[in-house]
Amino acid sequence: MTEFIPPGSQFHALPSPLPLKRGGQLQGARVAYETWGTLAADRRNAVLIVTGLSPDAHAASHAGNPLPGWWEKMLGPGKAIDTERWFVICVNSLGSCKGSTGPASLNPDSGQPWRLDFPALSIEDIADAGVSVVKALGITQLACLIGNSMGGMTALAVLQRHPGIARSHINISGSAQALPFSIAIRSLQREAIRLDPAWNNGSYDEAVYPEAGMRIARKLGVITYRSALEWDGRFGRVRLDSEANDGDPFGMEFQVESYLEGHARRFVRHFDPNCYLYLGRAMDWFDLGEYANGDVDAALAQLRVDKALAIGANTDILFPVQQQQQIAQGLAAGGCDARFVGLDSPQGHDAFLVDFERFCPPVAGFLAEI
Amino acid sequence: MTEFIPPGSQFHALPSPLPLKRGGQLQGARVAYETWGTLAADRRNAVLIVTGLSPDAHAASHAGNPLPGWWEKMLGPGKAIDTERWFVICVNSLGSCKGSTGPASLNPDSGQPWRLDFPALSIEDIADAGVSVVKALGITQLACLIGNSMGGMTALAVLQRHPGIARSHINISGSAQALPFSIAIRSLQREAIRLDPAWNNGSYDEAVYPEAGMRIARKLGVITYRSALEWDGRFGRVRLDSEANDGDPFGMEFQVESYLEGHARRFVRHFDPNCYLYLGRAMDWFDLGEYANGDVDAALAQLRVDKALAIGANTDILFPVQQQQQIAQGLAAGGCDARFVGLDSPQGHDAFLVDFERFCPPVAGFLAEI
Repeated sequence: MTEFIPPGSQFHALPSPLPLKRGGQLQGARVAYETWGTLAADRRNAVLIVTGLSPDAHAASHAGNPLPGWWEKMLGPGKAIDTERWFVICVNSLGSCKGSTGPASLNPDSGQPWRLDFPALSIEDIADAGVSVVKALGITQLACLIGNSMGGMTALAVLQRHPGIARSHINISGSAQALPFSIAIRSLQREAIRLDPAWNNGSYDEAVYPEAGMRIARKLGVITYRSALEWDGRFGRVRLDSEANDGDPFGMEFQVESYLEGHARRFVRHFDPNCYLYLGRAMDWFDLGEYANGDVDAALAQLRVDKALAIGANTDILFPVQQQQQIAQGLAAGGCDARFVGLDSPQGHDAFLVDFERFCPPVAGFLAEI
Repeated sequence: MTEFIPPGSQFHALPSPLPLKRGGQLQGARVAYETWGTLAADRRNAVLIVTGLSPDAHAASHAGNPLPGWWEKMLGPGKAIDTERWFVICVNSLGSCKGSTGPASLNPDSGQPWRLDFPALSIEDIADAGVSVVKALGITQLACLIGNSMGGMTALAVLQRHPGIARSHINISGSAQALPFSIAIRSLQREAIRLDPAWNNGSYDEAVYPEAGMRIARKLGVITYRSALEWDGRFGRVRLDSEANDGDPFGMEFQVESYLEGHARRFVRHFDPNCYLYLGRAMDWFDLGEYANGDVDAALAQLRVDKALAIGANTDILFPVQQQQQIAQGLAAGGCDARFVGLDSPQGHDAFLVDFERFCPPVAGFLAEI
């Protein structure tokens, strides 16, 4: 039961009690966030970034934390999201374990971690918590709202629930509703964790920890975050040194197996399993269509934002580009100046985290126009 | 430790001892097979079917076993593979648990199941065992060799190791080498089984059985056997009755989750976990390129077969159609009259088992021409 809070985080106290969309409420909840650049006197240069499932708010280095962030090449002075022009806020999602309140945080009523007593979490709750930070900073309208992956869902929920909160929007590898392939993947990730006896109905600790379940969940994630095309070129059938598997016929033999293993090792003890369950289920539940009698296109057309860009990688199997295309078309149908760009990145869903050569120019170009 | 042998199976005793490609040998090994139709006096109307990972040899009903087989709609009198014309043999793969010798079979030396003492198994061993059945039936040349999925690998190994054994070949959703995406999936399936404490290094029994690991492995398989496109249309975001999950926020809620659950239940106690490990690893190891200094196209061009058809579904993510296209092109480069057909089946890798409307005509058409 550990939280992983980056040094230099700032915290915003949410209203208490905080009722959640699906029932239940939180006492003394908070959101961790980080900022870059300077808020203009007219407060009109603010950009909010809402993230994917696992990142913290440390999108890039700053004076309070000089370590490189997960979007270091995208965000900074003179970069695509230019912090000399924009005041950028990145929030850690409510329900996460990286500074914002989530299942790994202490429940002030019991003095114990929330674990499975954490109320059911929705993308809409994550959206509202992010907006609460923006308002607390005295900002009434964002110049741009940027959401990646799960954050693409969060951003749409922000626009739906807070009309007029953003003049423009960039949706990166996001979607307006979860579809069955991605639900199946996340359901299986959760099942792997929950079938691990060490998960113990959410009551694990560092000593007895659902390591096996988290390994499977993470490796399955990584498989769906990348693409077969990338791996054909990157790994092919290249083998590891023969010592790597100690003669075990089912041990690691191919480079691709070692790659997955590295990803699992870097993740397993660095993300809280219960938080993983809650955030994944929140994504499954998300369907913007709820706000227009099940018609997701109509719901998109109702969103009020002047200008939008929806981009993704043509090789993404988890949030396929058809979903970003749907976002652009739906927003455009409502009168938004919305554009879709499908990029030929081989890296699949993860491309926005690694293929800066392709992802930076459209982001920079869009922000230059607003 | 159970074998699942269809009633009405026939058995062929393999040479004993039987040395395997990667070292080790088997005593008293056998292959289970079934046949349909009548072998012509000139013995030139024989068709051999080699299968995917999990099927038994019961491809269709016959007098000895009237239950429908897994290819009932493809194989029979007047069907695409017309048993009024052809004498059809289907073999259960060596290493399987459905009548042929595998890790779940008794090792005659010890009187105990082989389990992990079973020698390392290769696709080439499966190929040789199938050819041994054909020869024992007095057939020196097949009219057609048909391989599906893993059987597509097995068929190529048959052609490589037994030049002239077949006049024609149909490769369905197969490949000439395992690529890293499919290796990653199978590696993760194996890891899920091996991380299950009940697997117990292969020494489970019915009472203590790696149920959790097999569930994860099977569900992951099913996810990669179908396609997101099919599921969008078939399941969308349709939910189960609210009683289905007993109020558990992480229980089954969406139809797609119930679909996966059904598949897991029908598989978990009906396929031996150790056999699953061996057969999956055999696929990872398969690379026809081994026979031409790593050049898989050159290895295909060396195969001797007059006429060939390589077909698959455009939505297959496990054995993508580029791999069937490669087979046709490679065979054609060697002088074979080879054709590739990519079918617009939404059902992905499994399409050949369910989309008979699309798969039967090209198979029937090809067989009509030979």
